[in-house]
Amino acid sequence: MPDTPMPDKIVEFLRQANPAVMATVAADGRPVSVATWYLLEDDGKVLLGLDAKRARLKHLEADPRVALTVLAPNWYTHVSLQGRVVSITDDDGLRDIDRLSIHYGGQPYANRERPRVSVQVEIDHWHAWGELREE
Amino acid sequence: MPDTPMPDKIVEFLRQANPAVMATVAADGRPVSVATWYLLEDDGKVLLGLDAKRARLKHLEADPRVALTVLAPNWYTHVSLQGRVVSITDDDGLRDIDRLSIHYGGQPYANRERPRVSVQVEIDHWHAWGELREE
Repeated sequence: MPDTPMPDKIVEFLRQANPAVMATVAADGRPVSVATWYLLEDDGKVLLGLDAKRARLKHLEADPRVALTVLAPNWYTHVSLQGRVVSITDDDGLRDIDRLSIHYGGQPYANRERPRVSVQVEIDHWHAWGELREE
Repeated sequence: MPDTPMPDKIVEFLRQANPAVMATVAADGRPVSVATWYLLEDDGKVLLGLDAKRARLKHLEADPRVALTVLAPNWYTHVSLQGRVVSITDDDGLRDIDRLSIHYGGQPYANRERPRVSVQVEIDHWHAWGELREE
């Protein structure tokens, strides 16, 4: 599995608003997956915006390892990332979830009541399939 | 998180050829995710067809716990499953991967050379979001 840096075409793909699924491990070590928004930042880290009350935030606090699979519209093409959470901070003013929501849907995040957290993931490995496959 | 049995509308959704991502844990416990085909069988188990040489088959042999997130076309709606592998068998004659390939693309599986295995997953938990959400 290739390490970073990622080729430009993979970076370009990851910058699009593609459907994605994140996987974490629960306290008993079992894998847990859920659909998620993500944003590839200019510094190469991946931003995730989590509800502050969800179990998966506890999972990430206990074990920072995370996997993310990003699907192309044809979804034969996809990219999977493996990495580690390097920071978890309160999303004051919901600025990060708004960035994610605007990236995906063009609108600020609808729910202004529930607290959110911003999670930064450093990518350790990546793998591409389909049209983005690297031999 | 509700246990089985799943409501009819969830079963109906899972029977469609939706994009899906499976998550397993590697030997060191880190989560690993990848896009996958799946098929919900009449007995309620989930069929996955894996390349016999891939790392994720070793992961499942070492730790049978698996998660699967299935996305709707609008992908705000999605269903996540958690379960355990209850059988891993050689896919003799590629019958199962052909069933999966026909389900998703209408054609038998193209690559007749590489050995495949059939993996049956028993669902322990499920969770639905979006239009399929159960309160």
